[in-house]
Amino acid sequence: MPKNDHRKQRKTLLTSPGTLTYVGEQTNFKTLIKRIEYNESFYQEEVASTLEACTIHKVEGAQPHVTWLNVTGIHESNVIESLGRLYHLHPLLLEDVMNTLQKPKIETYEDGHLYVTLKMIHGHEDAQKSAWGEHISLILGRDYLISFQEEHSGDIFLPVIERLKASVGKTRRHGADYLLYALMDVIVDHYFITLERLGDQLEDMEDTVIGNKISGSLEALYTLKREVTFIRKYIWPLREMVSTLIRPDAPLVSKRVFPYFRDILDHTIQLVDNLDTYRELVASLVEVQLSAVSNRMNSVMKTLTIFSAIFMPLTFIVGVYGMNFRYMPELENPNGYYATWGIMVLITFGMIVYFRWKKWL
Amino acid sequence: MPKNDHRKQRKTLLTSPGTLTYVGEQTNFKTLIKRIEYNESFYQEEVASTLEACTIHKVEGAQPHVTWLNVTGIHESNVIESLGRLYHLHPLLLEDVMNTLQKPKIETYEDGHLYVTLKMIHGHEDAQKSAWGEHISLILGRDYLISFQEEHSGDIFLPVIERLKASVGKTRRHGADYLLYALMDVIVDHYFITLERLGDQLEDMEDTVIGNKISGSLEALYTLKREVTFIRKYIWPLREMVSTLIRPDAPLVSKRVFPYFRDILDHTIQLVDNLDTYRELVASLVEVQLSAVSNRMNSVMKTLTIFSAIFMPLTFIVGVYGMNFRYMPELENPNGYYATWGIMVLITFGMIVYFRWKKWL
Amino acid sequence: MPKNDHRKQRKTLLTSPGTLTYVGEQTNFKTLIKRIEYNESFYQEEVASTLEACTIHKVEGAQPHVTWLNVTGIHESNVIESLGRLYHLHPLLLEDVMNTLQKPKIETYEDGHLYVTLKMIHGHEDAQKSAWGEHISLILGRDYLISFQEEHSGDIFLPVIERLKASVGKTRRHGADYLLYALMDVIVDHYFITLERLGDQLEDMEDTVIGNKISGSLEALYTLKREVTFIRKYIWPLREMVSTLIRPDAPLVSKRVFPYFRDILDHTIQLVDNLDTYRELVASLVEVQLSAVSNRMNSVMKTLTIFSAIFMPLTFIVGVYGMNFRYMPELENPNGYYATWGIMVLITFGMIVYFRWKKWL
Amino acid sequence: MPKNDHRKQRKTLLTSPGTLTYVGEQTNFKTLIKRIEYNESFYQEEVASTLEACTIHKVEGAQPHVTWLNVTGIHESNVIESLGRLYHLHPLLLEDVMNTLQKPKIETYEDGHLYVTLKMIHGHEDAQKSAWGEHISLILGRDYLISFQEEHSGDIFLPVIERLKASVGKTRRHGADYLLYALMDVIVDHYFITLERLGDQLEDMEDTVIGNKISGSLEALYTLKREVTFIRKYIWPLREMVSTLIRPDAPLVSKRVFPYFRDILDHTIQLVDNLDTYRELVASLVEVQLSAVSNRMNSVMKTLTIFSAIFMPLTFIVGVYGMNFRYMPELENPNGYYATWGIMVLITFGMIVYFRWKKWL
Amino acid sequence: MPKNDHRKQRKTLLTSPGTLTYVGEQTNFKTLIKRIEYNESFYQEEVASTLEACTIHKVEGAQPHVTWLNVTGIHESNVIESLGRLYHLHPLLLEDVMNTLQKPKIETYEDGHLYVTLKMIHGHEDAQKSAWGEHISLILGRDYLISFQEEHSGDIFLPVIERLKASVGKTRRHGADYLLYALMDVIVDHYFITLERLGDQLEDMEDTVIGNKISGSLEALYTLKREVTFIRKYIWPLREMVSTLIRPDAPLVSKRVFPYFRDILDHTIQLVDNLDTYRELVASLVEVQLSAVSNRMNSVMKTLTIFSAIFMPLTFIVGVYGMNFRYMPELENPNGYYATWGIMVLITFGMIVYFRWKKWL
Ligand SMILES: [Mg+2]
Ligand SMILES: [Mg+2]
Ligand SMILES: [Mg+2]
Ligand SMILES: [Mg+2]
Ligand SMILES: [Mg+2]
Ligand SMILES: [Mg+2]
Ligand SMILES: [Mg+2]
Ligand SMILES: [Mg+2]
Ligand SMILES: [Mg+2]
Ligand SMILES: [Mg+2]
Ligand SMILES: [Mg+2]
Ligand SMILES: [Mg+2]
Ligand SMILES: [Mg+2]
Ligand SMILES: [Mg+2]
Ligand SMILES: [Mg+2]
Ligand SMILES: [Mg+2]
Ligand SMILES: [Mg+2]
Ligand SMILES: [Mg+2]
Ligand SMILES: [Mg+2]
Ligand SMILES: [Mg+2]
Ligand SMILES: [Mg+2]
Ligand SMILES: [Mg+2]
Ligand SMILES: [Mg+2]
Ligand SMILES: [Mg+2]
Ligand SMILES: [Mg+2]
Ligand SMILES: [Mg+2]
Ligand SMILES: [Mg+2]
Ligand SMILES: [Mg+2]
Ligand SMILES: [Mg+2]
Ligand SMILES: [Mg+2]
Ligand SMILES: [Mg+2]
Repeated sequence: MPKNDHRKQRKTLLTSPGTLTYVGEQTNFKTLIKRIEYNESFYQEEVASTLEACTIHKVEGAQPHVTWLNVTGIHESNVIESLGRLYHLHPLLLEDVMNTLQKPKIETYEDGHLYVTLKMIHGHEDAQKSAWGEHISLILGRDYLISFQEEHSGDIFLPVIERLKASVGKTRRHGADYLLYALMDVIVDHYFITLERLGDQLEDMEDTVIGNKISGSLEALYTLKREVTFIRKYIWPLREMVSTLIRPDAPLVSKRVFPYFRDILDHTIQLVDNLDTYRELVASLVEVQLSAVSNRMNSVMKTLTIFSAIFMPLTFIVGVYGMNFRYMPELENPNGYYATWGIMVLITFGMIVYFRWKKWL
Repeated sequence: MPKNDHRKQRKTLLTSPGTLTYVGEQTNFKTLIKRIEYNESFYQEEVASTLEACTIHKVEGAQPHVTWLNVTGIHESNVIESLGRLYHLHPLLLEDVMNTLQKPKIETYEDGHLYVTLKMIHGHEDAQKSAWGEHISLILGRDYLISFQEEHSGDIFLPVIERLKASVGKTRRHGADYLLYALMDVIVDHYFITLERLGDQLEDMEDTVIGNKISGSLEALYTLKREVTFIRKYIWPLREMVSTLIRPDAPLVSKRVFPYFRDILDHTIQLVDNLDTYRELVASLVEVQLSAVSNRMNSVMKTLTIFSAIFMPLTFIVGVYGMNFRYMPELENPNGYYATWGIMVLITFGMIVYFRWKKWL
Repeated sequence: MPKNDHRKQRKTLLTSPGTLTYVGEQTNFKTLIKRIEYNESFYQEEVASTLEACTIHKVEGAQPHVTWLNVTGIHESNVIESLGRLYHLHPLLLEDVMNTLQKPKIETYEDGHLYVTLKMIHGHEDAQKSAWGEHISLILGRDYLISFQEEHSGDIFLPVIERLKASVGKTRRHGADYLLYALMDVIVDHYFITLERLGDQLEDMEDTVIGNKISGSLEALYTLKREVTFIRKYIWPLREMVSTLIRPDAPLVSKRVFPYFRDILDHTIQLVDNLDTYRELVASLVEVQLSAVSNRMNSVMKTLTIFSAIFMPLTFIVGVYGMNFRYMPELENPNGYYATWGIMVLITFGMIVYFRWKKWL
Repeated sequence: MPKNDHRKQRKTLLTSPGTLTYVGEQTNFKTLIKRIEYNESFYQEEVASTLEACTIHKVEGAQPHVTWLNVTGIHESNVIESLGRLYHLHPLLLEDVMNTLQKPKIETYEDGHLYVTLKMIHGHEDAQKSAWGEHISLILGRDYLISFQEEHSGDIFLPVIERLKASVGKTRRHGADYLLYALMDVIVDHYFITLERLGDQLEDMEDTVIGNKISGSLEALYTLKREVTFIRKYIWPLREMVSTLIRPDAPLVSKRVFPYFRDILDHTIQLVDNLDTYRELVASLVEVQLSAVSNRMNSVMKTLTIFSAIFMPLTFIVGVYGMNFRYMPELENPNGYYATWGIMVLITFGMIVYFRWKKWL
Repeated sequence: MPKNDHRKQRKTLLTSPGTLTYVGEQTNFKTLIKRIEYNESFYQEEVASTLEACTIHKVEGAQPHVTWLNVTGIHESNVIESLGRLYHLHPLLLEDVMNTLQKPKIETYEDGHLYVTLKMIHGHEDAQKSAWGEHISLILGRDYLISFQEEHSGDIFLPVIERLKASVGKTRRHGADYLLYALMDVIVDHYFITLERLGDQLEDMEDTVIGNKISGSLEALYTLKREVTFIRKYIWPLREMVSTLIRPDAPLVSKRVFPYFRDILDHTIQLVDNLDTYRELVASLVEVQLSAVSNRMNSVMKTLTIFSAIFMPLTFIVGVYGMNFRYMPELENPNGYYATWGIMVLITFGMIVYFRWKKWL
């Protein structure tokens, strides 16, 4: 998660409500709108060159079909505004489409559409650097769906487009509600990839901490905890969001599609569950690490104490016989030197026995 | 948050209920009442010189409009009381208007008005000093709104007045309920500025603690935690307050304005969410810091132990040959001195190898 | 809170249910019953000499009025029992009136009265000693109220009696339900005084811990936490108790008095809120204190290590030239002594540079 | 709580549901069944010699009365089974009667009886050893009650039998529901005795830890926490159990008896409340203890450092003048020895001043 | 729990919904389907050689009976798919049957069947290695039950089959709902065996930590906590799952079988309760261990300080009389040597008294 996210919000403050402001990274590519129309018997796809080409075709006598506007780029407020006018979207909805700091949420509008926003988590090639959450918005109408992506390098919904094109599968047979499911499924599936990376990191930390190789582990544990905390914030709201979608009185989602959303709910619960386990295990590892440092200090102190306890008496003794008193009978004794050695060996031995008994050696 | 806030409450204790007592900082400016009236077709603003000028104009045949009494100063109990009489406000409501220690809350009165109180957080220029919460009260009637601010240096609602004057925008087209939203939005927007400051401080702490530069970090972490705790107490009640405002049976807020309050709700949730993350990260940093101190102590102890383990045996040996025994064969040996040096070099070398092997060096 | 409170309960164990047992401090004063009758047009007060004088006067044709029996002393079971018979009080209610260990609670009896028990917290002059909670019981009937206090030294409800006597204020105009509010308000107001004392103690602790003057702070922190914990237990149940009183279907409390109880609810929430903040801050201070001790130990160890690292090599060197070998060329050298000093100064200087570089100095 | 409780469960695993298995301590006394019948006008008690004598007497025209089967011993599965057949008890209910590991719970059976199981906590004479929970089962029917106790040394319900025999009190005037209350009250009253013991232990721990006499306190704190945890598990379910008993639609408990069960509910809440306080205070004491150990270590290290800082320089100086260089001018100086002492006294004095200034002395 | 479980999920990502993917250990045995049919009067069992043999026999005029398909092996997607077609199972249900990472859950399908998935915990012979959770699925229809097991080495439901064959017991007399209970009971009973193992490990840890034998205890405590955390995740969802099964409006479970499921619910609550106690006790043990390490370090430091405080002054004194000053009156004194010894004995004695007084000895 970019460190200074909290600074972007400022752009939107103290302006008139509904003022459209893009707060993400500065970008300057042109917004791309792909219009896809399909039902069980036909599929067509075109890049919408003009905004008018984005309106739903209401050809008389035509068979019912799903229109999907797949918009890439949320930084051009005039494009967003024009789309909003075409589909009667509330200014505050459009504000949220452009506000990359908006938390995941679902909102029902009385004009007959539903607004879902969530984050696509992109992992970095470099496992060291943290992931970032692309701001995704999905608007579901009776027979249309509008999706907004933040970035233009690679369409994250490509797998769904492929499936639509390829054959008349489940997606083609169902309506716009199933399409909403399919797009959310792509995003939720990507969360598992991020989770896998975090799980790998946690296991590395376990090996490091328990294997006592701890230099630098503090930073790593903190960074891991930080990332788990942030990703959890993206995933946590999904539980309630999906539950809202499959309430018995949900107007835009048909009962046939409920099992699919329930599957996403299932996955979301599992994700949060795993993140919580990670969080708990990280907390335990911090404790284990603290304890390990204490243990090691203990062993250092023992070493020091044993050295001191052996050599301090010995140094004292040799100091005694290094004194220059004129009358020191021991010094004259021809065996004095050897006797002194004998005493010193005895002391050393005694100390070793003592520390063995104390289990320090 | 001023440290001795808890001492101010005393003034209001054991008095008869409804006794009006100002407990904030002593001030002596004169209360300022600005009366603004507007609808889609007209806007007029005057400073209400007499209290009677504060009554809503009920001119026969006049077009419906919104009256906003923007009161600055809550320390003159007689002014507050007179306003209370004019608008049939409950004595306990007036007590809460003047009680700067009152927590944010919403209350519905059966006389057909709504009482909202919350805090405007003012940041200090000096980032070191903590913010303070100005006590704000908002009373919403069918076609009027009364706002109370504590301080007279700068009207916090100026941006809204500017928008009202400037053109016939959303604020002019809606009723008093939208005005309530607009004023609350100004206050909530300011919370993000405080949050940004806290976020910056947290990142500084992260750099300090993880970068091992920890002198003084304890105080700073505690102060940060303290500030997060206090600000959270101001923001937390807003969730339920706004939810109350947009209940289906809310009498004074029209459905058209619901999306706007939902937007505030959204921001409130995000604020609390971020504060909780900050709190959690501060707690983790305290642990990291504790662990870092332990690590450093460990390294200090190793240094000491290595010095002792090398020099204690050496000092013992030179002590041995400093003894004055008459019969010590080694002393007579012409190579004794060099042999002793050889042994000492060997011991030093052995110790270094031993500590290398123990990974202490 | 008296330390051995948990031992008093024993007196009430294994007796027949409804057995009246006083478990508080042994006292031997005579129970005092003050009977006060009032309405908007009259006020009279007398000490009820006989128990029969306690019955509500049901004089034919008399104007409706409130009767308040203000009982001081709950240790004489025969008095309590007689009162119970007069007012048809349940034996278990009487048991709770006398049981000073009873937690605050509210109970509705089908005979048409309401039982409220809570604690009056008395602070000690000596801020060092902890407060104690006087056991208060309040029984609200249709047109009467019976209050029970534990102690006879000073009537805690005196301010209310003064207001009643002084003039025809709110209390005189309302019924027995408002009197209940007025008495509870007195008690809740006293909580703020205790809270103020705790707040002062917490700020002292902050200064002590952060200012590094920590001798004895452990005990103080624990004692503070203990007191916060106990007082919280007295205040916490009040939230639900007052909420019960102002439920739409509450039989004995009129709608007119609801705002007043809502005010108490407000204060209770604020009290619990503050106590929780205190608790959290105390927990943080304990951590800060632990961390501060570690920091100080670190600095002690560094001092020791620096001394050792400088003097151990020096002592070794002077030991070398204190050896008595016959052939030690350096000893004969006329500049040997000065050269040795030179080397020792160099080593000292080198060590100082090393520890500077390690940021230990 | 016996340490290896978790091992007993195994006996009941993987058998057919409803298989009756006694898992408690091996015992071999004969099950004792006391049959007591009473109403307001008569009381009779006999030891039921045959199982048939256990059936409720349905004599024609007899006055309604309560039959209480007071069974001591739950280890003979054939006796339990026969009783089960007589009273139409579900096999799983019988399984729970014999399963001493069953947690406290309440269960309503459609055949018109109620099953309550809870634990009687017996304290050990020896305060050091932990209490044990006797498995008690109570079955309430329309006009009968069956109680099961685990142990035969002393009937825990004796006080109730005494009251029944002694006079026509509340117990005789009410039905079987009041008897259920009376038996549960005996058990709950005993919990307070255990709580008192824990409270005494906690206060001893406080004195020990704060008074710095900490040898062995770790074990004691852990044991105390362990015991609080286990006893809490026995008491916690009672809250919901009693609440279930006094639900407005409870079929077997009459409204007249509700206040009595509410009294038990009250006591249960107080018990859990106190246990939670104990738990919290034990946790705080662990922290205080950890902090106290750190403080003490700090003082040990200071002592060591002061000794080292004073004697290392002195030992170095005397080492210098113990060198054997031929040319050392100071040695020839007649005042050299005294000058050296002067310098050493100065250094010592300087060190003491330095450590005073550092507040280490 | 296998360490790298989190890596398996990847296989199921970004595929079309309902794609059947086995994510468990690679296996290559052939799926085994045992078909059992029974009612009170007959029992027959055969290995279903063809998939068609798996359909429920709907012979005209036949007596109603239960069909149980006991499937071992969930790795062959074509078999699972064919079964799904026969019984009209939703593709997402089949996905969950094969997805060994699926958390325990219950799901009702409108086609009239119920899906239950949970984990069978297998303990390792080697108590050191952690248990693993076999993925079990149970599908309950009106008169049939399909069970899926992951492994073919030993049928975990054998005890139930034995009971079915052996005699006309409860299982034969009830319907498919009781069979569901019987199978879940087998699994829940096995949890107690795992719990017993964890309880034994915890008691070993208690002995180790409190008995101060702590080498390696850190790893063990962490591993124990990890295992408790994972097993809790398997058992926790069972509470709500079983509660769902016995809701008054549950369509497939008859009231007669409710007490049996309530018994499982009971056991589940007890399991979670015990796991939570274990978790709490492990956390306490970690604290005790940290404290024990500190205590031990304290004792090491005291030893070191006592040695230093005794020998540093002595070594200094003998150093003094080892100086080579020409004029040192004490050296000439014939009793100087003995006097020096006297002083040294006095100092030693004084130190010992001092440390006794400080309670360090
Ligand atoms: Mg981000
Ligand atoms: Mg704005
Ligand atoms: Mg998916
Ligand atoms: Mg699934
Ligand atoms: Mg799936
Ligand atoms: Mg932990
Ligand atoms: Mg303030
Ligand atoms: Mg007042
Ligand atoms: Mg805003
Ligand atoms: Mg928004
Ligand atoms: Mg906005
Ligand atoms: Mg964190
Ligand atoms: Mg901590
Ligand atoms: Mg108390
Ligand atoms: Mg009693
Ligand atoms: Mg008050
Ligand atoms: Mg108020
Ligand atoms: Mg007030
Ligand atoms: Mg705090
Ligand atoms: Mg037990
Ligand atoms: Mg069984
Ligand atoms: Mg009782
Ligand atoms: Mg009671
Ligand atoms: Mg009682
Ligand atoms: Mg604590
Ligand atoms: Mg696993
Ligand atoms: Mg998929
Ligand atoms: Mg079972
Ligand atoms: Mg059972
Ligand atoms: Mg069972
Ligand atoms: Mg515990």
